[in-house]
Amino acid sequence: MSDQSRRRVHRSLRHHFRRKTKPGDRPGTIVVDPEAPKPQITVIAYTETDLVDCRVEQPSELAALLEKWPVVWVNVDGLGDADTLNRIAEIFKLHRLTLEDVCNVHQRPKIEPYEEHAFVVVRMPHNTEGISTEQVSLLIGRNYVLTFQEFEGDVFDMVRQRIREGRPVMRKSGPSYLAYALIDTLIDSYFPILEQIGDRIETLEAAVLDNPDESVVSEIHAVKSDLLVLRRAVWPMREMISGMTRDQSPYIEQSTHVYLRDCYDHTVQLIDTLDTFRELAGGLLDIYLSSVSNRMNEVMKVLTIFAAIFIPLTFMAGVYGMNFENMPELKMPWAYPALLLSMAVVGFGMLAFFASRGWVSFGSRKRPPTD
Amino acid sequence: MSDQSRRRVHRSLRHHFRRKTKPGDRPGTIVVDPEAPKPQITVIAYTETDLVDCRVEQPSELAALLEKWPVVWVNVDGLGDADTLNRIAEIFKLHRLTLEDVCNVHQRPKIEPYEEHAFVVVRMPHNTEGISTEQVSLLIGRNYVLTFQEFEGDVFDMVRQRIREGRPVMRKSGPSYLAYALIDTLIDSYFPILEQIGDRIETLEAAVLDNPDESVVSEIHAVKSDLLVLRRAVWPMREMISGMTRDQSPYIEQSTHVYLRDCYDHTVQLIDTLDTFRELAGGLLDIYLSSVSNRMNEVMKVLTIFAAIFIPLTFMAGVYGMNFENMPELKMPWAYPALLLSMAVVGFGMLAFFASRGWVSFGSRKRPPTD
Amino acid sequence: MSDQSRRRVHRSLRHHFRRKTKPGDRPGTIVVDPEAPKPQITVIAYTETDLVDCRVEQPSELAALLEKWPVVWVNVDGLGDADTLNRIAEIFKLHRLTLEDVCNVHQRPKIEPYEEHAFVVVRMPHNTEGISTEQVSLLIGRNYVLTFQEFEGDVFDMVRQRIREGRPVMRKSGPSYLAYALIDTLIDSYFPILEQIGDRIETLEAAVLDNPDESVVSEIHAVKSDLLVLRRAVWPMREMISGMTRDQSPYIEQSTHVYLRDCYDHTVQLIDTLDTFRELAGGLLDIYLSSVSNRMNEVMKVLTIFAAIFIPLTFMAGVYGMNFENMPELKMPWAYPALLLSMAVVGFGMLAFFASRGWVSFGSRKRPPTD
Amino acid sequence: MSDQSRRRVHRSLRHHFRRKTKPGDRPGTIVVDPEAPKPQITVIAYTETDLVDCRVEQPSELAALLEKWPVVWVNVDGLGDADTLNRIAEIFKLHRLTLEDVCNVHQRPKIEPYEEHAFVVVRMPHNTEGISTEQVSLLIGRNYVLTFQEFEGDVFDMVRQRIREGRPVMRKSGPSYLAYALIDTLIDSYFPILEQIGDRIETLEAAVLDNPDESVVSEIHAVKSDLLVLRRAVWPMREMISGMTRDQSPYIEQSTHVYLRDCYDHTVQLIDTLDTFRELAGGLLDIYLSSVSNRMNEVMKVLTIFAAIFIPLTFMAGVYGMNFENMPELKMPWAYPALLLSMAVVGFGMLAFFASRGWVSFGSRKRPPTD
Amino acid sequence: MSDQSRRRVHRSLRHHFRRKTKPGDRPGTIVVDPEAPKPQITVIAYTETDLVDCRVEQPSELAALLEKWPVVWVNVDGLGDADTLNRIAEIFKLHRLTLEDVCNVHQRPKIEPYEEHAFVVVRMPHNTEGISTEQVSLLIGRNYVLTFQEFEGDVFDMVRQRIREGRPVMRKSGPSYLAYALIDTLIDSYFPILEQIGDRIETLEAAVLDNPDESVVSEIHAVKSDLLVLRRAVWPMREMISGMTRDQSPYIEQSTHVYLRDCYDHTVQLIDTLDTFRELAGGLLDIYLSSVSNRMNEVMKVLTIFAAIFIPLTFMAGVYGMNFENMPELKMPWAYPALLLSMAVVGFGMLAFFASRGWVSFGSRKRPPTD
Repeated sequence: MSDQSRRRVHRSLRHHFRRKTKPGDRPGTIVVDPEAPKPQITVIAYTETDLVDCRVEQPSELAALLEKWPVVWVNVDGLGDADTLNRIAEIFKLHRLTLEDVCNVHQRPKIEPYEEHAFVVVRMPHNTEGISTEQVSLLIGRNYVLTFQEFEGDVFDMVRQRIREGRPVMRKSGPSYLAYALIDTLIDSYFPILEQIGDRIETLEAAVLDNPDESVVSEIHAVKSDLLVLRRAVWPMREMISGMTRDQSPYIEQSTHVYLRDCYDHTVQLIDTLDTFRELAGGLLDIYLSSVSNRMNEVMKVLTIFAAIFIPLTFMAGVYGMNFENMPELKMPWAYPALLLSMAVVGFGMLAFFASRGWVSFGSRKRPPTD
Repeated sequence: MSDQSRRRVHRSLRHHFRRKTKPGDRPGTIVVDPEAPKPQITVIAYTETDLVDCRVEQPSELAALLEKWPVVWVNVDGLGDADTLNRIAEIFKLHRLTLEDVCNVHQRPKIEPYEEHAFVVVRMPHNTEGISTEQVSLLIGRNYVLTFQEFEGDVFDMVRQRIREGRPVMRKSGPSYLAYALIDTLIDSYFPILEQIGDRIETLEAAVLDNPDESVVSEIHAVKSDLLVLRRAVWPMREMISGMTRDQSPYIEQSTHVYLRDCYDHTVQLIDTLDTFRELAGGLLDIYLSSVSNRMNEVMKVLTIFAAIFIPLTFMAGVYGMNFENMPELKMPWAYPALLLSMAVVGFGMLAFFASRGWVSFGSRKRPPTD
Repeated sequence: MSDQSRRRVHRSLRHHFRRKTKPGDRPGTIVVDPEAPKPQITVIAYTETDLVDCRVEQPSELAALLEKWPVVWVNVDGLGDADTLNRIAEIFKLHRLTLEDVCNVHQRPKIEPYEEHAFVVVRMPHNTEGISTEQVSLLIGRNYVLTFQEFEGDVFDMVRQRIREGRPVMRKSGPSYLAYALIDTLIDSYFPILEQIGDRIETLEAAVLDNPDESVVSEIHAVKSDLLVLRRAVWPMREMISGMTRDQSPYIEQSTHVYLRDCYDHTVQLIDTLDTFRELAGGLLDIYLSSVSNRMNEVMKVLTIFAAIFIPLTFMAGVYGMNFENMPELKMPWAYPALLLSMAVVGFGMLAFFASRGWVSFGSRKRPPTD
Repeated sequence: MSDQSRRRVHRSLRHHFRRKTKPGDRPGTIVVDPEAPKPQITVIAYTETDLVDCRVEQPSELAALLEKWPVVWVNVDGLGDADTLNRIAEIFKLHRLTLEDVCNVHQRPKIEPYEEHAFVVVRMPHNTEGISTEQVSLLIGRNYVLTFQEFEGDVFDMVRQRIREGRPVMRKSGPSYLAYALIDTLIDSYFPILEQIGDRIETLEAAVLDNPDESVVSEIHAVKSDLLVLRRAVWPMREMISGMTRDQSPYIEQSTHVYLRDCYDHTVQLIDTLDTFRELAGGLLDIYLSSVSNRMNEVMKVLTIFAAIFIPLTFMAGVYGMNFENMPELKMPWAYPALLLSMAVVGFGMLAFFASRGWVSFGSRKRPPTD
Repeated sequence: MSDQSRRRVHRSLRHHFRRKTKPGDRPGTIVVDPEAPKPQITVIAYTETDLVDCRVEQPSELAALLEKWPVVWVNVDGLGDADTLNRIAEIFKLHRLTLEDVCNVHQRPKIEPYEEHAFVVVRMPHNTEGISTEQVSLLIGRNYVLTFQEFEGDVFDMVRQRIREGRPVMRKSGPSYLAYALIDTLIDSYFPILEQIGDRIETLEAAVLDNPDESVVSEIHAVKSDLLVLRRAVWPMREMISGMTRDQSPYIEQSTHVYLRDCYDHTVQLIDTLDTFRELAGGLLDIYLSSVSNRMNEVMKVLTIFAAIFIPLTFMAGVYGMNFENMPELKMPWAYPALLLSMAVVGFGMLAFFASRGWVSFGSRKRPPTD
């Protein structure tokens, strides 16, 4: 499993720096990944009392919705069709650099204030096939929130439910509160993933002290790589949220600031935990190495004890195996038992010597050395 | 014991990032831990001359107290009943995010100024079952201090006694002085815990130099994890206290600033000590590894000495154990003693060689190698 | 290959600090590297509708072009002729320190505002013969961009094509947009190189876990040196780009700022990836060392098992090879088979002992230890 | 000696965080260490022409002196009597937090401006029984400097002598110059102690390369701990001095600023040297470990050479020690010398093989491996 | 050689913190090192057209020169005579702290603006006997530059020549340009020294991969110490130069700022290179350690192969060397050749086993393990 997780992690790392536009391409060039899923547009628009919740086939239908409703959440899943994206961009007056950023799904989280809207990039964590992060782009405008996701399936179902159930705070507030709710949900979705990493570290801690083998090393490496992936996503998020409250974009309402401050606290807590895990994971390798050294010591001692006991005895036997004619001991009747006795004395003497050095322990041993 | 402490430490680390609210929950949602103890409300209210010190059964009784007394300290132990907490929140006009923070007991220390009060989160250290920290939330209002604690039992008894004894400074000052007294007491309670960690490091220092075994490694790891737990609690406390003096909340009186500056010095001293301990603990692992290497060296030398002395001798004996017919030495009467003599020469020669390399030391050896 | 790459990397590192001017030379002294290629001047000048794209033999021809066209891009490949460079410097009124910087091709990326133009230094990555960076100097004036490159061949062909194709944005905009297009292209050209390093790290990860040998160490070292080369080039680029938007040079138009902000994001992404790679490469050495220790452990175990099994057996054989006259066992007819039996018992006993310690595994072994 | 120094160092480390006041004590509570020496008050008061230099028995005598003289230096050695300290505090109008800081002798260096005086804490190094630092508190008032020291004996004798000798600059200047002179002297007293540590590092460098044993490790650890003690004292001193010039306390005269700037340079130099020593000491452990590895390598080679030469020879002898009836070689007259010859060939062949690998060096060996 | 360089480096490190004034000495006390060379005063004074270039015996002669010439460069080599220095100080109105700094030759580079002049300290690198730095103090006044050097011999000959040759820029500009020219020359003189260190690192890289022995470790340590010496000198120089342009001293003319900015770039480049070298040198030790581990592995394998092949064979021979009467094999005529055959089978079987593990490689081996 460690191999698999390693490979998966690595792929997500490489994802981060692979750009689809070629060097020298016109800025704002949209290069669509042919394997990316086609865009699916869903809309939830609501007033305090009313609600429409539908799937939209043509981007052109959006214009009408935007005119009619005070808060419109347009969600686009999949970035696999340049034409659709361009038509959406036209309706929402996206800067072409913004559209490029939406499609180049390796952006760091950031906020960019434009005249028409605030452009926010966040990253949503996934742990389905190894830890990776999906780019979610938000455009917060006067009466809309436009979100782009790479794939279908997200963590926003709870938000949708809160809108549908007509929770008053949600339904009364404007798009910036909706955007906050989405970002908050996304940030909260990091916590269960951190919990899983915490469990993996705990398992590793037990393994490294009790029964370390080589798979521990690659698992430590996998955990550290996973933490790097998360760190790359979470660190800039802190700055981004503080930018949302600080930069005074007209589309982030003042009343949302107190909520964003809460969000900010959560990202700080995430960073804190990531750093702690990082230190713990780093410390595990040290423990592993010391444990390997200890076991080698153990092996060496066994070898030394056997060699040191039997090599002298074999020598003694060798002496009386010689064929000299003039070896008076050979003829003495008590010589053989005497020699056996002295061999026993030498052997047990060595054993006592090693026991005195603590290399041999008789009786209870608490932790048997294992491999 | 090291195993136990490790497990305990780890649990408290994981505590830090486990949130009870689910991603996507409405902000301000209070999710009560069903195992948490039920809230117990106690009140100490005083003027310069008068004092009431009682347990309150119903939150509604608090309103009357607040109206009558110039300084009211309401302390809530236990967060296990959403209803009670909501009723308290109503009386004190808590923002729903504030109440969420009170119940999500993994907040970093922070200060948040609200219109009605200043909201302060601090963490109280415990060393009953491994080092962990308990969240204490303070709300400092016009004429009250409202504190929430996770469990009964705290370090504030000395403060209660000072109020009851009618110490003039305490009884004359307002809620911000009371809040200071509580925070100061809490910060001072870190010092004895650091002292204990200092003792553990000292013990480890002795162990690592005199008699290192594998339990040392896990104990070093446990100490480092404990230091991480404390660091996570203390670092943001520094910022928090400096925020209390800087942010000009109307509820933190100017006259308290000089005391808070003193508090600030104490947290800096704590951080200083934590960093020093961290470096010392880090250095211990290096010493341990070098000590393991040294002992392996020792084992290797013993093996080498035995092998290098007896293997050549055994070979010599083997030669004269051969059964060739034409071996004139076998018939010479002085050959056997001559061979024994040359064996002795070879053996002691090897010994002298190793002694010249310092591998064998005759006479006094100061520190016997141990395992 | 690792040796070669190491040598190449190192050369490029040393390049960085080798200056051609001698200590004490007059500031602004141009010392031409005799091996440097001779300057080749090419010009692309355009209006929204018109275009000239030619090679210029004499610097003096530039003056006429500058007067006539609204946007002139003068590109100089090769710095091998002081006279030509001086004549160009005269036409464009270069400060003599600027010209010195152009020729001393080890500058860090930077921006310096002059009265006549903004002077920008960037570094273009190459991976033809090991990773190295080439200095590209840009002078952005009222109606021109003057670029100096060390060698012919660059990453700007896409920009040339966009100009020639008459892309409206490009053709309508002034020199600062052209400068942006060049810098953006150059920064984007780092991404494929990072991708290659990512592949090398991936290969190393596989090697270090499956089949580590000494070449892995030198390849890790080579990767780390390559990352150092790139880091030295990319880090100051971030500051430089932020300086372009901040320093309010009149030659960097306001309308270009939004594009430069995009550039800035890309450099931050580069730095992010470099740091991640750096950590991964650093971690690989730890894994390698633990892997070497593990293999040594494996070797030790094989030795110990052989020695511990056969040394006692050899001793037993030695005993009955002695020539004492009084050895009653020798005459017993069942003694020999009995001894063989006890030898088998001892041998298999030892084997069982080692199997119980996990040193010997019968049946399937997942990962054969290799060298 | 290393053991002793370790213990001493550690004690001074633990000193740093042991507070005498209990958590929850009233701020400003003075808890006197019963073992601390009783306060001894000495006074030097001077004008440009006049001087009084006496020991004062009762704090009450100080009031008269303060009224009469333009510059009064009151020095208190020993903090062992709460009553005396309280009476002094009353005369000089010390804030009760200040008096608490004076008595809690583990303060970090700092400056605190009060209305009546500036309160400065510095730490004086001692190397009598291991490196430790003593707290010296200075109160700089309108016409006095009040100093508190933990013990009798300090580095200020040169300052006293300069006052007594009537050096004009000293005698003409006010209390802030006197305070500067004291602080400057104290900072300069760190230099000889750093010199001693420099000598210890030099000795360690020689030991680690020439003759490393386990005592080196504990001495490196001791040096690093000593550097930690000094760093804790010196780092905040830099900030403190810069605070003295920046904070515009009326009691630090403008004319003293140029001298304090000089002081500041000295602390920066101290920090510089501490950091360099720290790096050197850190590097020594790496060298030690590589040296231990090298020596183990050496031991292994000796073992391998002996084993690889004699084990095959012993086998050859063993073959011809067998008792088969049909062993024609045994009867050939030249077989024995032929075997001896081939043994010699094998033996010297092995030796040549190892020499070709560089494991055996004949002739001069420069550095004999030692333990 | 490595020993020597180590000792030399260390001496220069210790130089840095050895102060000649004693703690408590009056500030401004000049303590002359009795071994320092006597001061030699040389003067170069010039107008645009005129030049005087002479040696001055008495400081008093300087006053006349200062009155007459618009730019006077007074250079003092050697600080071995307090009287001469005091007389020079009087003429140039040096603050006594300045003179103390000039004589205490372990200052960090810095700039201090005084009313009469700007006081600049820089450090000149030497590599004659190990890398060390010499303090050069500059006083930049209205119409003079006064420089103090510890020893005769400097890197300023090129500047002198440029003045003598009457280069117009030099001769027309004022003292601040002269000061810039000196500082620039001095900074440029670090580059060849860095080049040498680069060569040493390159040599070490080759050694550590191809033929590592213990001398490599001490050479790595020496390189790191040299880099520390240079870093201590170069880091503060950056700040110092930025201070020269920022602090608006009237003696640093505005027209010089553009040149100082160039200087600043050079120091940044130096720091960059130092940091890169530092990382490379740090990485070398890791490679060395992994290489030592690898070689030990190699040794262990040789031992294991010999032991594992011959120990079983010797046992087999031992069995048939036993003297039991009832050993029917001994009488069988084909038993001896059969045993020899099975011995060969066992031996080659073991060899094949080790070859299958990759421990033995037949045929070409690329890199013979060496010591």
